[in-house]
Amino acid sequence: MLKLVKYKFPKMIDEENQGVLHVFESDKIPFPIKRIFTVVNASAKSKRGEHAHKACNQLLICLSGEIELFCDDGKNKETFLLESDGDSIGVPSGVWAEQTYNTNNSVLLVICDKPFSESDYIRDYDEFIKWKKIS
Amino acid sequence: MLKLVKYKFPKMIDEENQGVLHVFESDKIPFPIKRIFTVVNASAKSKRGEHAHKACNQLLICLSGEIELFCDDGKNKETFLLESDGDSIGVPSGVWAEQTYNTNNSVLLVICDKPFSESDYIRDYDEFIKWKKIS
Repeated sequence: MLKLVKYKFPKMIDEENQGVLHVFESDKIPFPIKRIFTVVNASAKSKRGEHAHKACNQLLICLSGEIELFCDDGKNKETFLLESDGDSIGVPSGVWAEQTYNTNNSVLLVICDKPFSESDYIRDYDEFIKWKKIS
Repeated sequence: MLKLVKYKFPKMIDEENQGVLHVFESDKIPFPIKRIFTVVNASAKSKRGEHAHKACNQLLICLSGEIELFCDDGKNKETFLLESDGDSIGVPSGVWAEQTYNTNNSVLLVICDKPFSESDYIRDYDEFIKWKKIS
């Protein structure tokens, strides 16, 4: 089984029509924030990710809708359901990850501990397995 | 006229069904990130904000839909339209701000340079005007 760390962030609803507030204080995040990215308006059942990072660690948070997160460390594979309840899963470096957007309105927030670097990505699964054996 | 600084962040569409990626590298943000918050699922025409911060500076980014941003520094008032094109407006401390969610699918991302502190908020407009005169 994959040992991924889960985090809980506040989710607040004040007045129903004013929507949902999610809050991420930097002292509740396990690393200094170097990069944030978001995915909106992905079609239901579309897939993103399908890569691993050599060094970058990430927190994945579903802000709206529902996102399926598949993770594989080269030995163990596991699928997690991210719902928009303030739960977050930490995906460390060296883990292959894929996200499937279950619903049209799903919104993903990702908080990273490294700036973008193309050389940090492994985008081919066979290459990932080779890299895991030597790393 | 209010002199607010605008920022531009990358917005990427790879394959249409995979949605829209917005990216925020920390070295493109004018301060260390101490807090992030998001608003999703607000009803069209609903309003949030309606307060000023004494010390906290913020970047406001519309990730989806359209959000109207009203700002008032005590002398000048101005309304900006935030569209989901990667544009961001910096709202500095000492500015009263209100956001109106123009569409149901609007998503707001706010990046702050201070952690949450209730004493940093001025939630009453008359009190804000008084505070501006002595600050």
